[in-house]
Amino acid sequence: MIYETIITSCSPEGEVHIAPFGIQWHAGRVLIMPFQPSTTLQNILQTRSAVLNLTDDVRVFAAAIARKKMVSTLATGYEHCMRLSDCLAHHVLSLDEVEPDDTRPKLWMKVLESQTHAPFMGFNRAQAAVIELAVLVSRLHMLPAEKINQELQYLQIAIDKTAGSNELEAWQWLLDCVNNHRAQQTGMQQA
Amino acid sequence: MIYETIITSCSPEGEVHIAPFGIQWHAGRVLIMPFQPSTTLQNILQTRSAVLNLTDDVRVFAAAIARKKMVSTLATGYEHCMRLSDCLAHHVLSLDEVEPDDTRPKLWMKVLESQTHAPFMGFNRAQAAVIELAVLVSRLHMLPAEKINQELQYLQIAIDKTAGSNELEAWQWLLDCVNNHRAQQTGMQQA
Repeated sequence: MIYETIITSCSPEGEVHIAPFGIQWHAGRVLIMPFQPSTTLQNILQTRSAVLNLTDDVRVFAAAIARKKMVSTLATGYEHCMRLSDCLAHHVLSLDEVEPDDTRPKLWMKVLESQTHAPFMGFNRAQAAVIELAVLVSRLHMLPAEKINQELQYLQIAIDKTAGSNELEAWQWLLDCVNNHRAQQTGMQQA
Repeated sequence: MIYETIITSCSPEGEVHIAPFGIQWHAGRVLIMPFQPSTTLQNILQTRSAVLNLTDDVRVFAAAIARKKMVSTLATGYEHCMRLSDCLAHHVLSLDEVEPDDTRPKLWMKVLESQTHAPFMGFNRAQAAVIELAVLVSRLHMLPAEKINQELQYLQIAIDKTAGSNELEAWQWLLDCVNNHRAQQTGMQQA
């Protein structure tokens, strides 16, 4: 079972990196499988630490994909471990074991501390639609235009019916990515 | 903004009714708009009480749609207010104001007590797919077969990639509903 979460990691010099990750829980440990190369992978191998953030603010996911800076972080009390200021819960993680792999090494993380900050508000179909669009945007270069259009149309329904302001903002950032991609494709076809 | 939640209500005789509801929060009050007639509407008008349950166990949503009995409830300490035994949070609600309507009266509910039981685990795309299929199943009689097939195919991807056992079980219950509906349609065409 895969949960879509936000991993915050730090470079040894203290630069915070914020990235969406699909993680798994196995027997109390968190499994993260970053692609090679990635800043999160490098940070965790160097500092042996990270924070797993659970947030329902889908703007954090969209901002990471659309390369916007909108997210603030807080110290957790653990070295190299910064968490999202605004999240429903966070877990401070320590690297327990690495299974090397040329494509996606497996990082097994122990939980040092868990804190819950706010309750789950319920499923929101627009939040789920933003997550799906984030996945789609991260794979734009692999997808035919027709498939992108179909998915967008389908996901738009939940946005129109159930979104709040955070979801609308995140949706727009991701739509901008799709439109940039479309403009590039048209430019390439005309060139 | 609409959250998909579970409303538990009781008849004056104490029979518990469990129903999925898309609810809204406005200035600290919960807005529920049940269709006429419905057991939840009748129960809330009679007892002036209900419980808003936040759960990530999508089987509760699927069970309500597929009319399966799998959910257990617990007393909250408030009369006529039973909550899901297994939920992430619950709010005990008291009827504050009714805006009558022949189709969907507006029930404005005050929060008497809120409790958080477990932290949010992160977004799970399969859970979102089950919620979408539940919405689809509740509207099967209004949808063309082609549309149903397309949505199922699309949602199946997230199930295959990210589901755990609860999501697979809920998905199967809802698929059974779709297959029953298809069989009925075929029967009607042959008759």
